Amino acid sequence: MHALMYENIGVKGQHLTFAGLDTSALAEQFGTPLLLMDEDRVRNRCRVYKEAMADFLPAGSHPIYASKALSMQAMYRIMQEENMGIDVVSAGEVYTAKSAGFPMENAYFHGTAKTDRDIAFAMDAGVGCFVSDTVEELDAIQAAAEKRGICQKVLLRLAPGIDAHTHEKINTGRVDSKFGAAITTGQAESLTRHCLGLKNVELMGYHCHIGSQIFAEVPFCQAAEMMLSFLKEMEDQLGFVTRVLNLGGGMGVPYVSSDPKINYRENIRLIGQIIDKYCLELGLNKPVILMEPGRSIVADSGITLYRVVNLKHIPGVKNYVSIDGGMTDNPRYALYQAAYTVLPADRMEDKADMICSVAGCCCESGDLIQEKVALPTPKRGDLLAVLTTGAYNYSMASNYNRVPRPAVVMVKG
Amino acid sequence: MHALMYENIGVKGQHLTFAGLDTSALAEQFGTPLLLMDEDRVRNRCRVYKEAMADFLPAGSHPIYASKALSMQAMYRIMQEENMGIDVVSAGEVYTAKSAGFPMENAYFHGTAKTDRDIAFAMDAGVGCFVSDTVEELDAIQAAAEKRGICQKVLLRLAPGIDAHTHEKINTGRVDSKFGAAITTGQAESLTRHCLGLKNVELMGYHCHIGSQIFAEVPFCQAAEMMLSFLKEMEDQLGFVTRVLNLGGGMGVPYVSSDPKINYRENIRLIGQIIDKYCLELGLNKPVILMEPGRSIVADSGITLYRVVNLKHIPGVKNYVSIDGGMTDNPRYALYQAAYTVLPADRMEDKADMICSVAGCCCESGDLIQEKVALPTPKRGDLLAVLTTGAYNYSMASNYNRVPRPAVVMVKG
Repeated sequence: MHALMYENIGVKGQHLTFAGLDTSALAEQFGTPLLLMDEDRVRNRCRVYKEAMADFLPAGSHPIYASKALSMQAMYRIMQEENMGIDVVSAGEVYTAKSAGFPMENAYFHGTAKTDRDIAFAMDAGVGCFVSDTVEELDAIQAAAEKRGICQKVLLRLAPGIDAHTHEKINTGRVDSKFGAAITTGQAESLTRHCLGLKNVELMGYHCHIGSQIFAEVPFCQAAEMMLSFLKEMEDQLGFVTRVLNLGGGMGVPYVSSDPKINYRENIRLIGQIIDKYCLELGLNKPVILMEPGRSIVADSGITLYRVVNLKHIPGVKNYVSIDGGMTDNPRYALYQAAYTVLPADRMEDKADMICSVAGCCCESGDLIQEKVALPTPKRGDLLAVLTTGAYNYSMASNYNRVPRPAVVMVKG
Repeated sequence: MHALMYENIGVKGQHLTFAGLDTSALAEQFGTPLLLMDEDRVRNRCRVYKEAMADFLPAGSHPIYASKALSMQAMYRIMQEENMGIDVVSAGEVYTAKSAGFPMENAYFHGTAKTDRDIAFAMDAGVGCFVSDTVEELDAIQAAAEKRGICQKVLLRLAPGIDAHTHEKINTGRVDSKFGAAITTGQAESLTRHCLGLKNVELMGYHCHIGSQIFAEVPFCQAAEMMLSFLKEMEDQLGFVTRVLNLGGGMGVPYVSSDPKINYRENIRLIGQIIDKYCLELGLNKPVILMEPGRSIVADSGITLYRVVNLKHIPGVKNYVSIDGGMTDNPRYALYQAAYTVLPADRMEDKADMICSVAGCCCESGDLIQEKVALPTPKRGDLLAVLTTGAYNYSMASNYNRVPRPAVVMVKG
């Protein structure tokens, strides 16, 4: 039997169900490849964050959805209804959120490469807060704000120097990173001084993000400790009192049954303890804490359905099962050799008698979705489900080989 | 001074020129990021292949443009005018080529995952030849051809078992590959037998593709030798006389000055010698030889222009220069750590006094274009040129982070 990793996944006869619906019927109705999103589960995960942050963190603390994980109007509307903030990383995301009617004062504009045009666009869209990490960008924000006669709220993004032992390409808290001003080099302090000297910029506090796919609470606690020590320094040296501390995102999501389990609420409780403890020890007023979950809001609320196209059995070597999608709708194996769980969505009771590499449809050897997948000997037309595809699939999709993007269907239980 | 790798690259004062045009003026006119394609150079490269193949290979031999390298209507029109064949890999590429008015009888339909719908679409579009490597797909082609009362020309794609020592993800000629029926396992022979038994399918011959970025002629000569031996076997055992042998693509393109130089004409001459020699030894009639250059038609006919957005200098660690594009328009560093030459397009006479990592604009640590690039200390607004971006940049582009794709401008000298 197959590991049914999530509560919204089930089996009915030979068919996999998702959010209580027959995946085989959905594939028939909408065609494949097909990305299904479970709206209730997305909303529920938002509430887990909101409630835990309200219960265990200083007053006013709340989550912000890192919308690059899955950026589309429907998601911004859900975030608005759930009273979530959002993190946007480009003028394109600002545009999409604004078009969806999202209240932009609750948006945080990230990104290491905001052009003058991006800054003007976001300011005119009413983005509440910019997150910045260079002097040039702060100066550009100052100039744009001055021109508009406004005072733009800003957080400074710092690199706390934490190595969260995650994948190289999603590890962002180290000093050697394109993100953030390092505390250890003195650059965080000089950026603070610079920012405090800008008259159309209001420094609210700081941001850090230590990486993705982190399952333990320890790195977050370490980051909080580093950041609070820095807040204390700034208060002592510059008299600057931080009102907002954004600890970024990064809590893990299990993709395969061997991944660690994670309890988001419990992690937040432990982080809250550390914040209370250090604020007391350092004599700091507790800042509002923000967190930026992206993957953990949407990843395990999505699955992708594909049809098997061909099976290539190479005796003594390997079996390749090719599907009608691939790196165009999910480039994460090609980019990171990301692990995924693959299930035979319309043959759930058949014995898994073959180990296969699930190969995408692109003319590219690296276009694989997963290796070493146990399946009932696949045949043309079989339905496969790849779990945990809600994050960084649709948002990273391409049209390589002129393959169209899959439909995204939001289902409700 | 900077290595000016290509004849169509020059310097005028501080400015880089491309195909005789001032890149700084083009960036001003069209905005950045901007992909520039040199049409004359594309056409010239087609002619190098056509002439060498006419001069050194059996009568009727000609090149086919592997259009996945850069698939757009303008390219298909150029290919039509240059009397090139084309290789298409999806219904989407069939659609784009057909929309451009390309004569589809000169199109070869590749891909390891053709659905019944893809097959029907390509057949109705009049695609001249299908390239297939599985029994299931051949049966689906047979069924579709029978339904239409036609006889569909087919090549069988084989895996000759050559390891061309190129990057893992672009190495396709080995037995362990999602592409091709292996000769050594007997599968190539049984696929041939199966194909010969289909009454609405006309087997024209065979195809192989041993990989990409191959600079020496030796792997191509080995592949030709393997394929010709197999042709002889099929002639002896099944009485099947091969009319067309497609040796695929894969000839390299230098991306950085340390890459080997390559003389396409000379490589083709040497391959021709081997074909003559083995056909004589084996007593084979010389088949028409096809080759499928993609990268070597377009890669070094393209450059991308970006503006510097920010510089992040981390003392004792690294310098990150962020630009207004990145993995969204060029994912090849993120995917393969591909090497590129980066030039300061509007400061060509300034001393390169800083070693930088050129970082893309996406909120993703892996979004780099190149590491260890020597530049004059970059400042906001500087223009950078990344060379050799004509292949697998626009075609692999995404809208991750909701970043729009760059404009593509075809220039003529």
